[in-house]
Amino acid sequence: MADYIYPVARLIECFRRLPGVGSKSAARMAFGVLEMSPEDAEEFRAAIKGVKEDVRRCSVCCDLCDSDKCAVCSDPGRDQSVICVVEDSRTVSALERSHEFHGTYHVLGGVISPMNGITPDRLNVKELITRLNGTVNEVIIATNPNIEGETTAVYLSKLIRPLGVKVTRLAYGVPVGADLEFADSETLARALEGRREF
Amino acid sequence: MADYIYPVARLIECFRRLPGVGSKSAARMAFGVLEMSPEDAEEFRAAIKGVKEDVRRCSVCCDLCDSDKCAVCSDPGRDQSVICVVEDSRTVSALERSHEFHGTYHVLGGVISPMNGITPDRLNVKELITRLNGTVNEVIIATNPNIEGETTAVYLSKLIRPLGVKVTRLAYGVPVGADLEFADSETLARALEGRREF
Repeated sequence: MADYIYPVARLIECFRRLPGVGSKSAARMAFGVLEMSPEDAEEFRAAIKGVKEDVRRCSVCCDLCDSDKCAVCSDPGRDQSVICVVEDSRTVSALERSHEFHGTYHVLGGVISPMNGITPDRLNVKELITRLNGTVNEVIIATNPNIEGETTAVYLSKLIRPLGVKVTRLAYGVPVGADLEFADSETLARALEGRREF
Repeated sequence: MADYIYPVARLIECFRRLPGVGSKSAARMAFGVLEMSPEDAEEFRAAIKGVKEDVRRCSVCCDLCDSDKCAVCSDPGRDQSVICVVEDSRTVSALERSHEFHGTYHVLGGVISPMNGITPDRLNVKELITRLNGTVNEVIIATNPNIEGETTAVYLSKLIRPLGVKVTRLAYGVPVGADLEFADSETLARALEGRREF
């Protein structure tokens, strides 16, 4: 980046620190900022400040929110007896978009990953257990279908089942709209195993 | 984006305004900012302010710079008698990385595009003509090899040749490392036309 003038090189470096951004897209975005109106650039700066200062964690489910309790936890229409446990806020958004789930969530803030030094005490597990005070009937574990997500799911189910709460997890299978020809064998095996009658 | 809380949705919207950014990568980057240290977020804000306040145009070649004259124009080792005309600053950076060119540049700030209302008077053409004051022997036109770049190249060559200055342009041909099998026919035709003896 030595061939860009300092202010541009500095902004490119900031973009590069974001997840999934390489040097070419960082440069493209930095030039985008350069060509933006001063008002848009000021709005961008204010928005960065906004997420750092105004975003907190919901005191119940640990999801991101801008007040004490998130919109789902404060909604009297949501079924408080079912908790869907997810890794992060983005999974909450994805599940909300499906309009299928009417219970509440619990955001772990990650998954157990000894390789990266993430042990259960660094996740919002204690907060989840506190919520299982007799009014909760079911905990749906919706961690990602990979090794770390599975490890976390097994850990949580062993922790929660003795408390007399039903523990379930999302169904494995072929994704809707997928081409079976290109499905991996593990997914196909799980889809066969979990087959249902018409 | 209605399912994200306001501060996050607002930052996603800012990222989406950047060139080449879709809603998924905008969300990924916004969450990246959320997880950044407060110092990195402050640096990001300062860098945005920096490009808007400290970046100017070189008074000679119209390239981006942070003082009155850019590094190339102030370098006495560069050949002032050759000017390479490019569309934007990114092309200057690309050519500098090739370490092949020792003349100076002239940044047009775009290409002629009647469809988008960009006529020659909206480009830095007047500034280029002003530079052709007898000390310049050659103008190399390095606009992009597409219709608008070609139109601009033809326009400039018609304007400059009567002034007694040699006008050249970059060679067309197959890119180094490319697979001929996948080269488009127009490129192959130009590569054949411009073939050189071993």
